Amino acid sequence: MGARGSVATTAITGLLALRAGLVRPVGCVTERLDIDHSVLPAWDDIAVGGHDIVSTPLDKRAEHLAAAGLIPHSVVSAVADGLRAVDAELRCGYHPVTHTGPQAAAVARLTRDIEDFRTRNDLARVVVVNVTSTEPPVPALPEHDDLDLLAAALEDPQRTVLPASSVGALAALTAGASYVDFTPSPGIKIPALAELAHRNRLPYAGADGKTGETLVRTVLAPMFTARALNVRSWAGTNLLGGGDGANLADPAQARGKLESKARGLARLLGDDVTAPLHIDNVATLGERKIAWDHVSFEGFLGAQMSLQFTWDGYDSALAAPLVLDLARLVSAAHADGQTGPLAALAFFFKDPLGTDEHRFAEQTRMLADWAARLGATE
Amino acid sequence: MGARGSVATTAITGLLALRAGLVRPVGCVTERLDIDHSVLPAWDDIAVGGHDIVSTPLDKRAEHLAAAGLIPHSVVSAVADGLRAVDAELRCGYHPVTHTGPQAAAVARLTRDIEDFRTRNDLARVVVVNVTSTEPPVPALPEHDDLDLLAAALEDPQRTVLPASSVGALAALTAGASYVDFTPSPGIKIPALAELAHRNRLPYAGADGKTGETLVRTVLAPMFTARALNVRSWAGTNLLGGGDGANLADPAQARGKLESKARGLARLLGDDVTAPLHIDNVATLGERKIAWDHVSFEGFLGAQMSLQFTWDGYDSALAAPLVLDLARLVSAAHADGQTGPLAALAFFFKDPLGTDEHRFAEQTRMLADWAARLGATE
Amino acid sequence: MGARGSVATTAITGLLALRAGLVRPVGCVTERLDIDHSVLPAWDDIAVGGHDIVSTPLDKRAEHLAAAGLIPHSVVSAVADGLRAVDAELRCGYHPVTHTGPQAAAVARLTRDIEDFRTRNDLARVVVVNVTSTEPPVPALPEHDDLDLLAAALEDPQRTVLPASSVGALAALTAGASYVDFTPSPGIKIPALAELAHRNRLPYAGADGKTGETLVRTVLAPMFTARALNVRSWAGTNLLGGGDGANLADPAQARGKLESKARGLARLLGDDVTAPLHIDNVATLGERKIAWDHVSFEGFLGAQMSLQFTWDGYDSALAAPLVLDLARLVSAAHADGQTGPLAALAFFFKDPLGTDEHRFAEQTRMLADWAARLGATE
Amino acid sequence: MGARGSVATTAITGLLALRAGLVRPVGCVTERLDIDHSVLPAWDDIAVGGHDIVSTPLDKRAEHLAAAGLIPHSVVSAVADGLRAVDAELRCGYHPVTHTGPQAAAVARLTRDIEDFRTRNDLARVVVVNVTSTEPPVPALPEHDDLDLLAAALEDPQRTVLPASSVGALAALTAGASYVDFTPSPGIKIPALAELAHRNRLPYAGADGKTGETLVRTVLAPMFTARALNVRSWAGTNLLGGGDGANLADPAQARGKLESKARGLARLLGDDVTAPLHIDNVATLGERKIAWDHVSFEGFLGAQMSLQFTWDGYDSALAAPLVLDLARLVSAAHADGQTGPLAALAFFFKDPLGTDEHRFAEQTRMLADWAARLGATE
Repeated sequence: MGARGSVATTAITGLLALRAGLVRPVGCVTERLDIDHSVLPAWDDIAVGGHDIVSTPLDKRAEHLAAAGLIPHSVVSAVADGLRAVDAELRCGYHPVTHTGPQAAAVARLTRDIEDFRTRNDLARVVVVNVTSTEPPVPALPEHDDLDLLAAALEDPQRTVLPASSVGALAALTAGASYVDFTPSPGIKIPALAELAHRNRLPYAGADGKTGETLVRTVLAPMFTARALNVRSWAGTNLLGGGDGANLADPAQARGKLESKARGLARLLGDDVTAPLHIDNVATLGERKIAWDHVSFEGFLGAQMSLQFTWDGYDSALAAPLVLDLARLVSAAHADGQTGPLAALAFFFKDPLGTDEHRFAEQTRMLADWAARLGATE
Repeated sequence: MGARGSVATTAITGLLALRAGLVRPVGCVTERLDIDHSVLPAWDDIAVGGHDIVSTPLDKRAEHLAAAGLIPHSVVSAVADGLRAVDAELRCGYHPVTHTGPQAAAVARLTRDIEDFRTRNDLARVVVVNVTSTEPPVPALPEHDDLDLLAAALEDPQRTVLPASSVGALAALTAGASYVDFTPSPGIKIPALAELAHRNRLPYAGADGKTGETLVRTVLAPMFTARALNVRSWAGTNLLGGGDGANLADPAQARGKLESKARGLARLLGDDVTAPLHIDNVATLGERKIAWDHVSFEGFLGAQMSLQFTWDGYDSALAAPLVLDLARLVSAAHADGQTGPLAALAFFFKDPLGTDEHRFAEQTRMLADWAARLGATE
Repeated sequence: MGARGSVATTAITGLLALRAGLVRPVGCVTERLDIDHSVLPAWDDIAVGGHDIVSTPLDKRAEHLAAAGLIPHSVVSAVADGLRAVDAELRCGYHPVTHTGPQAAAVARLTRDIEDFRTRNDLARVVVVNVTSTEPPVPALPEHDDLDLLAAALEDPQRTVLPASSVGALAALTAGASYVDFTPSPGIKIPALAELAHRNRLPYAGADGKTGETLVRTVLAPMFTARALNVRSWAGTNLLGGGDGANLADPAQARGKLESKARGLARLLGDDVTAPLHIDNVATLGERKIAWDHVSFEGFLGAQMSLQFTWDGYDSALAAPLVLDLARLVSAAHADGQTGPLAALAFFFKDPLGTDEHRFAEQTRMLADWAARLGATE
Repeated sequence: MGARGSVATTAITGLLALRAGLVRPVGCVTERLDIDHSVLPAWDDIAVGGHDIVSTPLDKRAEHLAAAGLIPHSVVSAVADGLRAVDAELRCGYHPVTHTGPQAAAVARLTRDIEDFRTRNDLARVVVVNVTSTEPPVPALPEHDDLDLLAAALEDPQRTVLPASSVGALAALTAGASYVDFTPSPGIKIPALAELAHRNRLPYAGADGKTGETLVRTVLAPMFTARALNVRSWAGTNLLGGGDGANLADPAQARGKLESKARGLARLLGDDVTAPLHIDNVATLGERKIAWDHVSFEGFLGAQMSLQFTWDGYDSALAAPLVLDLARLVSAAHADGQTGPLAALAFFFKDPLGTDEHRFAEQTRMLADWAARLGATE
């Protein structure tokens, strides 16, 4: 979902480049995990399809990202044929504004697309990864808590019961595909969808990929705790360009993202830390994302001290290999018969589903332990 | 050792303030460990003595630190009597320039001081903590590898076989005291002294307290590794005032410190990372220490990214509670019958003795596991 | 106005300390200007009075600032008598919430206070400096453009025609005092008040003291222009504690401050620069104010580059000597017969009255030229 | 001189791109000066030749810089023919290691190359710009102070009297060309060469192009002075890759650069500022240069404050347009009959020849005034 966005385009280009041996798998966590690699799909085993509401072809998108400094020109040229082949597998996504008729029809169409993709490519399993633009939180409805109520409401052509991310998640689960939410959008967090995942014996993971500022926060915050230092404030500012910046410039859209970030910090340090947080759209930064954090803390005998950091990264270059990792790991979990939220994948997310563990080092260990056991039961 | 320096003065002032209930134990790790507290000496159980080569009374030193913003004036006033009482327990330290006669005589004098202190205060155990100024590395001698050769050489009034830190360590071990090296000085790293610790069934810990830049490095570096990101350079600059800055402005003295810092980074990231590192004396910063680190790293498809941080801290305020923690923990280990280097205390050190583990999160876990077992065998 | 706030308390304490020879005039621009010093009031010539709506005595306020690290304890002790003497000269300020009756009565009371203060202290001139909390912008009224309409409206007990800052400015001008606006509040910017200043032949200066982030901006922005570099974004985040932080945490109050800052940047660089700007209240920072700015710019052949800076200052320590400078300079201008906005004092302000010159180096030159001519005509 | 280095390659590529209308003249100061443009050579009027000791063709060098992100690939492709044409004008430079025979022969060869270039291209004037790698300072010799002694010494095949930069400067002046030193190398600073410039009625300018950290320093330092703030320390660290980094990693080579930087700061702030400064070679940064500066300063009543900045730039992208500017301006000064050091060009240099003015705003004004008068006397 969002197959022509910056993250997806980078992930697809990178997958093709890895297959062709053009690049090393820098940033791919599955390549360094101590794991039985036979349980993971190899790069060559993965077929890529997807949905998107924009129609710019993938090879054009990749050229745009090369101009922005994110992907080498030489790589884009080398895999252009592959990009066009993937583009032929992409289908039109769901958007409430362009859709007419009941939402159930949209779910059915997306479900069919996924099933056809699986059949056409003769695949054992499909993992649907949501890398669309962030949606705002939605108000809770009674239909969100009950699959039967939900099914009935989706048939009503007058109603828009689910946000687009949840329409996609519902289609994935209905098609028997596992699901990964790389965004803070509602997606699978609608309780009825989690129920459906259990009923269909499907695993899922999320939410909101942890790629920059939050990654560093979940590394640094436990340091203060371990050393019994008293964090008094933790302020953050994010400057981002690209589509993400434009989308998150809208305070409504940004709310989900800000809440997801704030929840993690509060979990790590408690609620009494002053933690103002901003996201600004700075279009001229292109695909770069710059974050500045300032932490003031108190030490022995009341000494006032501070730590500040600036992160200057390409969000899509950080996210893309994780998307590939998640596709491999969730597929392996599916093959392993695991169902429900995969807490062991908290390592990848700002707002992990299935666990409250935000400390990165603990998440790293959870992932390593889980990966080491994958396939061991066979 | 170094009982009138900034770290010791802060630790002693803080201990008196904790006993008087004037401050909370911020920065004291033993207060937040999940540990059987009956195995640790309580604040009230600890008597403080020490050696130093300077004679400024402790209460004057504490006033100086209050003027520098490190300790509240009100605390210094409230514990002034206590500081004077501790000062009466301090004895003249060893310095090669002022000493005449064989080094063995200095060892004997310091040993006697420690034994007298233990007897006078009716103590079960003594922990000697080295918080003197950093010494340069010393060339290896055959006498450093053999206790008997060493003993003979120490009797020679013409020779200076051991640096001051090792003279102190030898006295501690001879007096049956355990030993902590909070500096990168040679101290107990002379092989014959480690042998003596084993022979006398004494535990020890070190080396070089991890309080600022290196603390952050050992937290951040494992993040890059866990995410398979390729760190290409890690540059660091340290600005420090106080006596530490003046001492480390001498490149010879700084060498030990720089080597200790560089070793840790190489262990975490490998040797192929460009890692220039500087220590500058900026006297006007007083007791503050400011470090700037710039990390450049490569991500997926060769994307160039960076992280930089600035740490602005009071080194003594960070070190002092750790000195109290170490005194408690090493005393407990001594009571528990442990001998040799305490690898589980790597958490506290830049260059841990007894282990090569530099990752802070792993060190935190090692400490927690060890602390949980302390006293459990009784 | 605001005589018991942090800025005023620091200025008054500093003036007393300068008189007593306890400190050097660091930060006092008038002490380094090439000026005929006979035209400036000497430190000993200045008497201090004032209005405030809070009643905490000045010596208590000064002790609070000493605890926050802003003023040395020793200075506060040494000038405590002087602070109490000044406190006896302070009168209750005007606040719309506590006032009853027509605003004209408030103006009359404040005017009388100023006149009495001048008579009681046998002063040649009075300069009223507004260092109260920032007020939000006010909607324009027809009465703001016409002194007679304004006078009539002020008699209406049902109306609140002027914000508190303008009530104070009106009282100052009515009493024959010159006026300085160190805040972005409406103050003398109401057109009818500017008219009154001209009619009463009084000089005034403002607005919004330039003490930190904006000071650096007006120094750096002309560098990019002079070098023909193309600034594409200039993002800023301000973290502030103290009363200022609490006040500006209210978006309505902050609006004036943010508009004042943004106006200057647009004037320097044009309107096509993306310039998000935030002010956050971080109470635990106390009297400190921390600003981070990130500037992205384009060079030859489209090269993308950046400059970022972090400013860590005590706003009151930066503002207080400028308040003393302004009192001296505006008094000298008054004696010199100058009337209306003093454009040559743009050096001191974020939003200078009487000129559009924001470049700090040009402002420095304007001030130097003007100061050199002060008194030269006599 | 240094015609195939990064700066020269960028300048030549940019000049060709400007002529072709492919890019805007961002970073070109002459394009925004208020100047009679008829006195300046137009982009189309400039022919490029040069000397270098390396033989990689210009078009290959430009491709390398494109891969490093410094120049767009599309520009390099578009001007490749032009680069090859310029490359045909380049001649082998002088290097003491490869040269045999007296230095006078090298001077004669370089002189002839310049004269031939002028004749072949039918040029009115030639400006020689030194953009070679930085040389270490040289010890003063009596021959450096006297043209006749120098001429005699250059004939001695056993001696190396002049460093390479000064050999080039001597050839330029002998050929009747004006000279610009964009490096801190000895170049024209040898007194006898300055004498020759006067004798031959030639203007010259230098030294050491001001493109990054020092540019910002000469902008910020006057701010502290103007505000009477007391700068106590100003620490700097430079991380640079490319050939510059490798060259300056050698402490001997770096000495000239460090001295040039330090001199400026001392001139601006006085000698009592602690100012440690480092240059580190970080090859993986490629053409980027990153500088971090930390300034600690004292304000009113002793308040301790700080400003820190990080500059992240492409040095060649900053230097190249200035090289074009200098060629145009020095050519115009030559045409105008000016001789000796052009103090008005201090704006461009870290260590300006002919003036001690380091304040950037003053330098900007000096340049503007001088440029406005250029040609006015005709």
